[in-house]
Amino acid sequence: MAFDAIETPFGKTDRIVGGAATYIAYAASYFVKPVQQISIVGYDFPKEEMEELKKRGVQLDGVEVVPDKKSFFWSGRYHEDMNTRDTLITDLNVLADFNPKVPDSFQGADFLMLGNLAPSTQISVIQQLKPRPRLIAMDTMNFWMDIAMPDLQKLLKMVDLLMINDAEARQLTGQFSLVKAAKAIMDMGPKFLVIKKGEHGALLFHEDQVFFAPALPLEEVFDPTGAGDTFAGGFMGHLARTKDISFENMKTAIIVGSALASFCVEKFGPIRLKELSKKDIDSRIQQFRDLVSFEIELV
Amino acid sequence: MAFDAIETPFGKTDRIVGGAATYIAYAASYFVKPVQQISIVGYDFPKEEMEELKKRGVQLDGVEVVPDKKSFFWSGRYHEDMNTRDTLITDLNVLADFNPKVPDSFQGADFLMLGNLAPSTQISVIQQLKPRPRLIAMDTMNFWMDIAMPDLQKLLKMVDLLMINDAEARQLTGQFSLVKAAKAIMDMGPKFLVIKKGEHGALLFHEDQVFFAPALPLEEVFDPTGAGDTFAGGFMGHLARTKDISFENMKTAIIVGSALASFCVEKFGPIRLKELSKKDIDSRIQQFRDLVSFEIELV
Repeated sequence: MAFDAIETPFGKTDRIVGGAATYIAYAASYFVKPVQQISIVGYDFPKEEMEELKKRGVQLDGVEVVPDKKSFFWSGRYHEDMNTRDTLITDLNVLADFNPKVPDSFQGADFLMLGNLAPSTQISVIQQLKPRPRLIAMDTMNFWMDIAMPDLQKLLKMVDLLMINDAEARQLTGQFSLVKAAKAIMDMGPKFLVIKKGEHGALLFHEDQVFFAPALPLEEVFDPTGAGDTFAGGFMGHLARTKDISFENMKTAIIVGSALASFCVEKFGPIRLKELSKKDIDSRIQQFRDLVSFEIELV
Repeated sequence: MAFDAIETPFGKTDRIVGGAATYIAYAASYFVKPVQQISIVGYDFPKEEMEELKKRGVQLDGVEVVPDKKSFFWSGRYHEDMNTRDTLITDLNVLADFNPKVPDSFQGADFLMLGNLAPSTQISVIQQLKPRPRLIAMDTMNFWMDIAMPDLQKLLKMVDLLMINDAEARQLTGQFSLVKAAKAIMDMGPKFLVIKKGEHGALLFHEDQVFFAPALPLEEVFDPTGAGDTFAGGFMGHLARTKDISFENMKTAIIVGSALASFCVEKFGPIRLKELSKKDIDSRIQQFRDLVSFEIELV
């Protein structure tokens, strides 16, 4: 839970609410309650945002509020293709010494989504959770591959599902082919792997199976910030709602996550994620179905 | 119909048979007979290749053989991503003065696929065909947008369907968003548009409808030469076999074309396209279905 300032070819924002956990919680809250949040913010994080999250069934007992420090702040500028960006500012602030404490009331959670943070921090959360959740999913990024690879390798052995983008999958394995990269990553620990390809959709791998979900062709991607986290929130929200962690149901979860992400990019920050109706979501999922369904009679 | 010499990260070939019309004919011949070929070759084009095509129902009455000139020759080197390549050599040879002559026996064709060539040459073929085919599809490339835009604009008004890649769609319209580019292109003439995205699949647009077909995630793309033409051949072959040019049936045609293209890239040149069985193709199409099909119960 943090602040971002974003520039895209379509506009720019001052400091607005962001952070992986914020997007994940908003997205998941459409499917399952409670969402139990573990994060850290400074004195400057808006009370109204906390209230908004609580109203949606997000429990904030695991969110540490540091009274004399600022929240994490990131500022970046997207290139025209919206798939690449330059970081302008990274102010760690409260994140510099984040030691997540899992509240007793969160014990027994079945589904754990670890947003992108230092692998050692992600490990600490897993170690505090007894019993182990049924499904542990994680995100990470190239930065941790560069500076914390041993921790990351240890963590990969502890999780069930990894979500990363195509460039990260290639960096992690040294394999250009995503099919080969996927095999190499599953050998590192996770039994399930989601490779996100931005505007080119997402792939789900498990053993010898593969599923592909397109991204919705949109007239404009207004702001891609948080799209990956929103995807993760929708994905985990669907699994938690249905309590089914089969490959078949994960396919559906990928579509649900993609649908939520397609809303996220329509406005700056998590704004769009606060105004969706059940009908909006169902109709978007139907668009995904129409986009890829075809009939064929083999002759 | 031509020769290529190809370098990929996986190997290199000397001069081998290639050319858009060759790939299109081999692919289409799995679905419909006869395929009526219009092209030009030199004295050096192998008789055995001509015999091989004839055996598959490809009529070569429209293929001019120039006794004192060489066939077109292209040589190129692919980059690691296989989506981009450098041209090393282009020897026009017989193509320098190609004036296609449509044989009388080809009149009455219902389906016309215009491979990538000078727009004026493509126009000449359309003008010779009376009655007009039910469906005229064309390919083109950035080169013609650079040097023959007025001809290309005239041609676009004469065709029903355009197939180009994403970079070409952006160049043709100046629109980065493919959805906006698609609308702009359909305003230029073609009622149907296929945008090929290489390893990221293909999009089919018609009026306000859109369909997306993924590319099969492959361990290795050995040689992408001819994949786009093979796609076109499979696409048109399916339409010609079923005689149905509805948007619904074009979705299926996109999958058939993608399946054929996924074979093409497995070996150098058109080699793989000569050794497929009906079962190979059906099983590949089934893989496409499995890749994107999902179940969802909206709640």
